[in-house]
Amino acid sequence: MGRNGISNETILEQLNWRYAVKKFDAARKVSDEDWNTLEQSLILAPSSYGLQPYKFVVVTDEKLKAELTPAAYGQTQIVDCSHLVVVAYKKVLTDADIEHFVERNMEVRNQPHEQLADYENTMKGSAKKAVSENTIETWNSRQAYLALGFLLETAAILGIDACPMEGFNPAEVNRILGLEDYSAVTLCAVGYRDAENDWLANLPKVRFPKEELIDRR
Amino acid sequence: MGRNGISNETILEQLNWRYAVKKFDAARKVSDEDWNTLEQSLILAPSSYGLQPYKFVVVTDEKLKAELTPAAYGQTQIVDCSHLVVVAYKKVLTDADIEHFVERNMEVRNQPHEQLADYENTMKGSAKKAVSENTIETWNSRQAYLALGFLLETAAILGIDACPMEGFNPAEVNRILGLEDYSAVTLCAVGYRDAENDWLANLPKVRFPKEELIDRR
Repeated sequence: MGRNGISNETILEQLNWRYAVKKFDAARKVSDEDWNTLEQSLILAPSSYGLQPYKFVVVTDEKLKAELTPAAYGQTQIVDCSHLVVVAYKKVLTDADIEHFVERNMEVRNQPHEQLADYENTMKGSAKKAVSENTIETWNSRQAYLALGFLLETAAILGIDACPMEGFNPAEVNRILGLEDYSAVTLCAVGYRDAENDWLANLPKVRFPKEELIDRR
Repeated sequence: MGRNGISNETILEQLNWRYAVKKFDAARKVSDEDWNTLEQSLILAPSSYGLQPYKFVVVTDEKLKAELTPAAYGQTQIVDCSHLVVVAYKKVLTDADIEHFVERNMEVRNQPHEQLADYENTMKGSAKKAVSENTIETWNSRQAYLALGFLLETAAILGIDACPMEGFNPAEVNRILGLEDYSAVTLCAVGYRDAENDWLANLPKVRFPKEELIDRR
């Protein structure tokens, strides 16, 4: 039992219930209250240094969903889902980005700038190193995947379905959405399964045996 | 409310309660029942094509934790936590890896090989492309971060603390653990906070305003 009385069984039941939905029920929409919890899960996810090098474009406009569909090779989840989340990572991290984050720290924690100077310099050093070594996109996109994990787990726990999709043309999605400093890395359709018409709904999950994934020392 | 009666408020309370612990209570250990749920969260996380291109080394041996500490610049969370999870991604994806996964599909879903031939070829093509374009490590490590997200959210929901750490020398950690085909990408200490002795325990979370992170269309 956790602090709030949520049992291990409930969590495991929900994580087993989750699957990557191939066919959504286009008539069912996620409520505003549930949607707020899903958005907050993205916002509350941790990131390296706390830098949040990503943004999430939430598409509910049906015309825009239809426009994005060809860029995802016609996958019907985009149109049929309730909310489409375009997970996008920041392609660079500049000194200005770090300074913007440091200012937010000063504001939220009521800290003077000088208390944050070492932290600022460390972050600027890490960002410059990642840019010069051409690993900045890898670094930032990993953080975005952690946040995607939070979105997917919260959805599962709330009994809301999702389908994360990497099969799309990022350049096309970026163009349609007008993304410049960010690049789309996953599309995550959120809504409710149409289990009767989804071939995947009742197939067992395929996972390697535990001994292959978990190595206890 | 989700299927199982878990409220939005409970989830939000737990995600707000979570923070990256700097000081663990070395005397408190995660129970076997809770640990099983955390491990299952890693196992049940989704991955691209379902390929699970990662593994998780769970270190509870105190000598090994101490040996790893210098590779993480002396961060005390490694020794003080209950379970240290070394999140490691697969550095390559070979035809043999894909075939191993296809065999697991045949076994778990009782499917004949011919039903999986197209899926197998698609995966092999994607893997070869990623290897030739030198994006395989980025791709696989992103999947590992999604699983890390599941670990962190389940921990938060169970009222268990964690601290994900990127500040370590991967080559050293790989050497100590004997990892060859995999590379450590995050160390995640799991246990219980020593709130009285942790400067970060009571500081508010720093997040950008919602409008900067969420872009509704």
